[in-house]
Amino acid sequence: MKELGYYNGTLGELGGMTVPMNDRACWFGDGVYDAQMSRNYHLFALDEHVDRFFTSASLLRIEMPLAKEELKALLNSLVRKMDTGNLLVYYQVTRGTAPRSHAFPKGKANLWITMTPGEMNEQLAPVSLITAEDTRYFHCNIKTLNLIPSVMATQKAKEAGCHECVLYRPGGRVTECAHSNVHILKEGVLRTAPADNLILAGIARAHLLKACGKVGIPFREEAFTLEELREADEILVTSSGNLCTRACSLDGKPAGMKREDLFMALYREVYREYHSETGGEPA
Amino acid sequence: MKELGYYNGTLGELGGMTVPMNDRACWFGDGVYDAQMSRNYHLFALDEHVDRFFTSASLLRIEMPLAKEELKALLNSLVRKMDTGNLLVYYQVTRGTAPRSHAFPKGKANLWITMTPGEMNEQLAPVSLITAEDTRYFHCNIKTLNLIPSVMATQKAKEAGCHECVLYRPGGRVTECAHSNVHILKEGVLRTAPADNLILAGIARAHLLKACGKVGIPFREEAFTLEELREADEILVTSSGNLCTRACSLDGKPAGMKREDLFMALYREVYREYHSETGGEPA
Repeated sequence: MKELGYYNGTLGELGGMTVPMNDRACWFGDGVYDAQMSRNYHLFALDEHVDRFFTSASLLRIEMPLAKEELKALLNSLVRKMDTGNLLVYYQVTRGTAPRSHAFPKGKANLWITMTPGEMNEQLAPVSLITAEDTRYFHCNIKTLNLIPSVMATQKAKEAGCHECVLYRPGGRVTECAHSNVHILKEGVLRTAPADNLILAGIARAHLLKACGKVGIPFREEAFTLEELREADEILVTSSGNLCTRACSLDGKPAGMKREDLFMALYREVYREYHSETGGEPA
Repeated sequence: MKELGYYNGTLGELGGMTVPMNDRACWFGDGVYDAQMSRNYHLFALDEHVDRFFTSASLLRIEMPLAKEELKALLNSLVRKMDTGNLLVYYQVTRGTAPRSHAFPKGKANLWITMTPGEMNEQLAPVSLITAEDTRYFHCNIKTLNLIPSVMATQKAKEAGCHECVLYRPGGRVTECAHSNVHILKEGVLRTAPADNLILAGIARAHLLKACGKVGIPFREEAFTLEELREADEILVTSSGNLCTRACSLDGKPAGMKREDLFMALYREVYREYHSETGGEPA
């Protein structure tokens, strides 16, 4: 298949797939998701993504319609149906199908999966960022389908010709980007926001911290401010499709770009791991 | 028809209706809605609801696929297809159909409509309320499909056997309920939260304030605290399906119920207007 759409066991080319109007995604955005890359038919960091997916569902009291190992087996079997093994693999669960009413419905949750051709972004060229106030809810630790503020921030970045929009709460605490985490290097130490309810703890963030350990860069999970972001030696942006990117400008002014040695050490380590885990024979 | 589902010109019984998996409602909850009652085939406060619907869309930069007058004509024509004229009429617009990507897609927005049998709640019996911290985003003035916090708060109220959940921000400012506005009467004055970005300015709220003018109760659009809520003479809850309800308990403790005369004056006036506007010959 070129682009897979899957809904509760029915599958087909994504563009032709439909879902019931009464799925709770449609009225409330009432669901959670996860997304990850496949390379060479290997799902990178599958256990971590599936664990996070189940945690998100649990925090919203959505009962999963299948077990973790069943989902992993399903994803691995669907990947094999695809024309290419280099894919963006996306899955979500929604709180069932029922006439619109806020309270939880009876009946089972719905499982959605899509697979579309996609390549990990491994660019070395630095990117530009803008900033905007973080006006989101206080459940940013849950990967939900309530994404309008991220849509608006992404559009703002796009219209400014930028890669991402860095969000900050009133008072200046930097949280994360519209759909990435952001980190700084200063005086040889990596700083990243703590994994509280103001950020989604990225899998790529976890891999970056592991890479810090490997290459000998100390790190602190401690919030930093816009001011500290502006004065950082390096600004790093990470996501599951973009494991380690550096920024060269912030709101149109030069930023970061002072410790290429540290950036390159982290970049090489996270992509070394990625290639090592996805480089073998197709699964 | 018993229960209508409409999507971009296609219509059928709601339970059998489907939508494209790639509608942006499905991935981002990227849309806005409005909902109102019909009685005797009359759409109550249609101009106000349609105005608010278009304002919501405009605040999210969603381009409407039709003009206000066209939407009103469409709603009036669809109401006539229904087996009963007493209905909950719901409509939403979503930011088009496209492969999942945060930034705005090309192409037209999608129009959804549902009509299901429903009666205005005119109960005189007082209701019980619970309270919870308001952890929502800072765009509560826009009636979006990003409703997970309202879903969770409603479920919490339901499990406590209560009618609604009153939300308050850190510091104690009462905002609104999960899907209603809340107001207090104290020393003969009605207080209601100002129509800022922390509440959805209800159409029923506007009608309540108009009723205050009619029956000679002064009102102030000024935030009040949880403490003031607990000590109010009356607590009123309003929504488009429930124009004026009073509460008798808050978090399991007695509350309000000290000025039945004022409550009854407001109750009679808002329902008098409702019956007067919807009581004539079927449209």
